[in-house]
Amino acid sequence: MNDAALKPIGLFDSGMGGLTVFKALAQRLPEEDLLYLGDTARLPYGTKGRDTIIRYTLKAAQHLVDLGVKMLVVACNTATSAALPTLREHFAPLPVMGVVEPGARAATTTSRNGHIVVIATEATITGGAYQQAITRIRPDAIVTGRACTLFVPLAEEGWMDGPLVEGIARRYLGDIFNTPGQTMPHAPAPDTLLLGCTHFPLLQGALQNVVGAKVHIVDSAATTAKDIAQELQRVHLLRHNDTPGKYTFLTTDNTARFAKTGSIFLGRHLNENEVSLVDL
Amino acid sequence: MNDAALKPIGLFDSGMGGLTVFKALAQRLPEEDLLYLGDTARLPYGTKGRDTIIRYTLKAAQHLVDLGVKMLVVACNTATSAALPTLREHFAPLPVMGVVEPGARAATTTSRNGHIVVIATEATITGGAYQQAITRIRPDAIVTGRACTLFVPLAEEGWMDGPLVEGIARRYLGDIFNTPGQTMPHAPAPDTLLLGCTHFPLLQGALQNVVGAKVHIVDSAATTAKDIAQELQRVHLLRHNDTPGKYTFLTTDNTARFAKTGSIFLGRHLNENEVSLVDL
Repeated sequence: MNDAALKPIGLFDSGMGGLTVFKALAQRLPEEDLLYLGDTARLPYGTKGRDTIIRYTLKAAQHLVDLGVKMLVVACNTATSAALPTLREHFAPLPVMGVVEPGARAATTTSRNGHIVVIATEATITGGAYQQAITRIRPDAIVTGRACTLFVPLAEEGWMDGPLVEGIARRYLGDIFNTPGQTMPHAPAPDTLLLGCTHFPLLQGALQNVVGAKVHIVDSAATTAKDIAQELQRVHLLRHNDTPGKYTFLTTDNTARFAKTGSIFLGRHLNENEVSLVDL
Repeated sequence: MNDAALKPIGLFDSGMGGLTVFKALAQRLPEEDLLYLGDTARLPYGTKGRDTIIRYTLKAAQHLVDLGVKMLVVACNTATSAALPTLREHFAPLPVMGVVEPGARAATTTSRNGHIVVIATEATITGGAYQQAITRIRPDAIVTGRACTLFVPLAEEGWMDGPLVEGIARRYLGDIFNTPGQTMPHAPAPDTLLLGCTHFPLLQGALQNVVGAKVHIVDSAATTAKDIAQELQRVHLLRHNDTPGKYTFLTTDNTARFAKTGSIFLGRHLNENEVSLVDL
């Protein structure tokens, strides 16, 4: 193992959602040091212009690079869609991973009949990054996109299951999954639901109840973690160690709020003193 | 009527919520020209630091002042809490009105038994501006604050009534209004609900169903409009005219989204070409 393999992996998100990627990565590669930066002062990115998102993302990524990471993970759909090519060019040869490609690839592999539903924020659906990534890999796929705006605040509030959450999910997705013949008469009923927002894995149980047990749910956090492990293996940067990895959390605003909401995403208590404030 | 009375009233908000104040004002003073500026590029203000909020608010207010307004209305709870004194000092003798005082005053007048529940965003509740304003006016008042985070995205999504909305409201407020004896054994059951967020008047019908018909709901948008009319009268700046006022909408980001969500708030179709983009 070379020295570079000992460095941490840097994850970046506009806020908290990327912590689902963090959690999936910590489960898959427990020996890796992880450095998470949430740019909470400037969230949400989803409603901002492309140039602004690229500028913010470059700044945050530079901060992680200056701290000496061996890989950059853009754990944010909006930032991935807008800034991934720019980041790869700017920081080459540092490996830079996004969340869109792994999710899209996993969905195309999972779906049998080729009808994939992508749910995400309004900005991600309107931008079409998942739709494009899926049809690039599988040109015959039918992709139905649906913005599920309320899922983000629901997850941040920690309301993850129960009749209310399912009721909201049914209002967004009922026509697609419960009466697909009426909504899309010329397409087969969708067999795959791709969670195209890093917040949504928190609602997975409720979503499964609404779309039915036969529909496969593809969680882009889990698939991204898998792709990260493969890429680290490929470039010989996997850490082989017996000791558990060290975790560092950085935020650009309000460490108390980060700790509170972060605890929901990580599924464990995050103490405010584990979170440091940085100024970008 | 002097020339100054012919100038427009300038309303400012971090986003769309202030449009409920706009609508209430247009109903009360239909002959006034109204100029609305929503700083959507930098919302939400609620999670930002006080100095940042003051800086943003000063910049937006300056833009309205440069356009020649006769009065500034801060149609945003967060900006009112953080920046009202600074704005009044900076732009004196221009009249500057906020939303907190009118709402607090109306609630203290409405409540018979003095137990007032304020609902607002997390930032507003944590900041305590309403709680302070109410007890300043009525020192014996009991004020219960409750952050209702999901109400903002619900209103922006246009989900304003029905069992889902009432279910969410019941989850936030059920313990206070339905079992007050258990929750607060030493206080009388609250008789007044103050909507301390400019988004919340959209949910008023659903909220009334949840809290019960006996509870008075005080809408700070309506009470602010009433106070504005009184203040304009006092300083001799009321416009007396037979022609309906002209309305101008300015936003710092995404005119299409402003028009779409704005239509929900105004209760009428707002065309994208009625909205202009400004750079602050």
